[in-house]
Amino acid sequence: MDQIKINLSEDQIPRQWYNLAADFKTPVKPPLGPDGNPISPDMLSKVFPMNIIEQEVSTERWIDIPEEILEMLYRWRPAPLRRAIYLEKHLKTPAKIYYKDESLSPAGSHKPNTAVAQAWYNKQFGIKKLTTETGAGQWGSALSFACSLVGLECTVFMVRISFDQKPFRKTLMRVWGGNCIPSPSDQTAAGRQILSENPDTPGSLGIAISEAIEMAVSDTTGETRYSLGSVLNHVMLHQTIIGLEAKKQLEIVGEKKVDVVIGCAGGGSNFAGLSFPFVNDKIHGAKIDIIGVEPTACPTLTRGAYAYDHGDIAQMTPLLAMHTLGHKFIPAPIHAGGLRYHGMAPLVSHAVCEGLIRPKAYDQITCYKAAQTWARTEGFVCAPETSHAIAGAIDEALKAKEECKEKVILFNYSGHGLMDLLGYEKFLNEELSDYSLPDDVLNKSLESIKDFPKL
Amino acid sequence: MDQIKINLSEDQIPRQWYNLAADFKTPVKPPLGPDGNPISPDMLSKVFPMNIIEQEVSTERWIDIPEEILEMLYRWRPAPLRRAIYLEKHLKTPAKIYYKDESLSPAGSHKPNTAVAQAWYNKQFGIKKLTTETGAGQWGSALSFACSLVGLECTVFMVRISFDQKPFRKTLMRVWGGNCIPSPSDQTAAGRQILSENPDTPGSLGIAISEAIEMAVSDTTGETRYSLGSVLNHVMLHQTIIGLEAKKQLEIVGEKKVDVVIGCAGGGSNFAGLSFPFVNDKIHGAKIDIIGVEPTACPTLTRGAYAYDHGDIAQMTPLLAMHTLGHKFIPAPIHAGGLRYHGMAPLVSHAVCEGLIRPKAYDQITCYKAAQTWARTEGFVCAPETSHAIAGAIDEALKAKEECKEKVILFNYSGHGLMDLLGYEKFLNEELSDYSLPDDVLNKSLESIKDFPKL
Repeated sequence: MDQIKINLSEDQIPRQWYNLAADFKTPVKPPLGPDGNPISPDMLSKVFPMNIIEQEVSTERWIDIPEEILEMLYRWRPAPLRRAIYLEKHLKTPAKIYYKDESLSPAGSHKPNTAVAQAWYNKQFGIKKLTTETGAGQWGSALSFACSLVGLECTVFMVRISFDQKPFRKTLMRVWGGNCIPSPSDQTAAGRQILSENPDTPGSLGIAISEAIEMAVSDTTGETRYSLGSVLNHVMLHQTIIGLEAKKQLEIVGEKKVDVVIGCAGGGSNFAGLSFPFVNDKIHGAKIDIIGVEPTACPTLTRGAYAYDHGDIAQMTPLLAMHTLGHKFIPAPIHAGGLRYHGMAPLVSHAVCEGLIRPKAYDQITCYKAAQTWARTEGFVCAPETSHAIAGAIDEALKAKEECKEKVILFNYSGHGLMDLLGYEKFLNEELSDYSLPDDVLNKSLESIKDFPKL
Repeated sequence: MDQIKINLSEDQIPRQWYNLAADFKTPVKPPLGPDGNPISPDMLSKVFPMNIIEQEVSTERWIDIPEEILEMLYRWRPAPLRRAIYLEKHLKTPAKIYYKDESLSPAGSHKPNTAVAQAWYNKQFGIKKLTTETGAGQWGSALSFACSLVGLECTVFMVRISFDQKPFRKTLMRVWGGNCIPSPSDQTAAGRQILSENPDTPGSLGIAISEAIEMAVSDTTGETRYSLGSVLNHVMLHQTIIGLEAKKQLEIVGEKKVDVVIGCAGGGSNFAGLSFPFVNDKIHGAKIDIIGVEPTACPTLTRGAYAYDHGDIAQMTPLLAMHTLGHKFIPAPIHAGGLRYHGMAPLVSHAVCEGLIRPKAYDQITCYKAAQTWARTEGFVCAPETSHAIAGAIDEALKAKEECKEKVILFNYSGHGLMDLLGYEKFLNEELSDYSLPDDVLNKSLESIKDFPKL
């Protein structure tokens, strides 16, 4: 029979991360400060420790993974590459569908790959406490887990509506010692102001980011920093271990060529993690279709502007050169909370502009149908975010069937859905909307960036 | 570094199950019918298909696993054997702690090992629909999953209080096409009677079993059968793939001898699955301490009678020779729902009587402390049931430290706890009781079996 699980042993783990910034034809545009000039590393030093800032601005192609970080990653890495033979049979496709299983980490997604790295670098730099925000809860869980390993305090601002709807995400963080606070909260000036204006606000990721950054930069001991789970260059870097492992595993099963690489894209990190090593191959001549899949409710890459914009609603972050729907954009309440972000990692955006990545959007009902097909064939229940990648893989496998081509398709199984079953319940009850973004809403949202520096 | 994950490839999967009934010094006592005489296979034929009944009564040592069942198991098997090096370091123990990771199945526990086998045999026999009961929801999820693979209808009676407290267990079953009904229900005579007497009853596993059996045997088409997730001989049989894989994996890492084998024991299936192949070694002279860990709230093996008793409160099952707290026993509401059963698998009970297995009991607060230590060292969040095995493993590792012995400890990581976080929340809030069973309650409960045939 065909091999289904392709494992690597611990001593086969990649020992360097891959930095795509080294290989672009044109350099990535730098982040800009409030004065419209490129920011210096120093300007970020109250937010991030300097060793992470160095990674953020690095254009070195390969960056060593410290041994102590590898020793944390061994809990679940190398992660298996798996072949979806049951789905292939169901689709009657000649394509081979491989997926990288990132659902096996303690927190259930790819997020811990960067969480343990960030926690470790902060610890090395003498930091005692990290703050962050979380929407659906995946990132807050991952950072709580990572902080427990290295011995850092961790405070997570969780968007209040998610905090209330998903009480067990908070419990998961608490098991690892994380302190999860519904946002807006009375712990920051930003939170207090919003609460005074609107005590019943459901909160938003933008508000939570503002609170987390404020708590970090206002700690007068200088021992607190902020941590972000996506978008930034160093986060993409840490996630490339996914694609680097996958390349070794494909080699082991004798796949000399991959035709299609797919990931879902919210802030961009799981997609970048799998795809960047293949983007590198593509830059060097390989013919690969690299597809970033996003929701039609939040179509950053397919319909957003490529422009300078802030990463948060309160405009506390630098201006980033990226695809954006406008920093004030509030996405419809789709269940794939991790894909509800107005912006995109600058490295992913740049790769799209250079024609290396092809974005594609699906509505959430199509994605839940794909998730159900997955559960009834492969057996596993995927995260709502991951269902977008599966929808993409199914379409590509059916295309291969039409074309009678034995293509090799690889996608990122970014997380399981066992803590996100509410969306499945609504899908099964036929209570879901598809929430595709109307043109007028998009155009209005993009007005918020019209006065920013142009690309 | 030491190897942490010991994987087997698909072609190394065991191809036979091991039947401990073949190796006992004294034969296991047969189940008795209502007349006090041993039941014949025919008497069970309205409840189970004949191919499963044949396995139930078999004393063949090795039973071939059909290729089509293996093809279903490959979705998650062979399962990794893992070494808990992070826990070892934390405990500063010279012992090596290995665990078999059964949490990676689609339903998140060891239950699908027998669910897919039972579904397949029923399908082979021409059955169209399976009924079952579920308490915490693990078994109902596993059988729904298995039925979706082979194409059977599946109806699960779920104890009402769990149904209400864990709404997403029902969703998980629905994703796989299972029909989950809160019990008692109006779909059976047994359910209607109980509802008429007590409309607000929280339900019980005993009632749910009665409803599931009634629905199966009263289907006049003869196309419905009942399926049980633990206790019975054929269930233990199907689970032995766990221990058989573990033996191969220990051999791969050069462990010639295992000193301690541990599993949590509710109905006995995950414990039997890991331990029976080692019980066989012990029968043939190996010196192994084989420990079944149960809750002090439901101390079937440590404090129950070894006697004939029914498996359910409504006395619909035959009388089984087993350790029991009395079929009317209602365990305290500990969070390890899978360990809240008054009886024990007859094969496990028999092995205890022959001195092959040593039972041990822990209270739930001790177990949650062990679970938290596990989460903060190994990283993963275990099921409340599994925490009992971890508590046992920690104690044995500390004993090895006292004795300065480099023991090899193996335990079964029977499931993850991501859908059971309520207990962790209460533990962290210091709201848990330990619920050890008082003597007077036990003595009163055992009165219900005083008129049954003696062993």
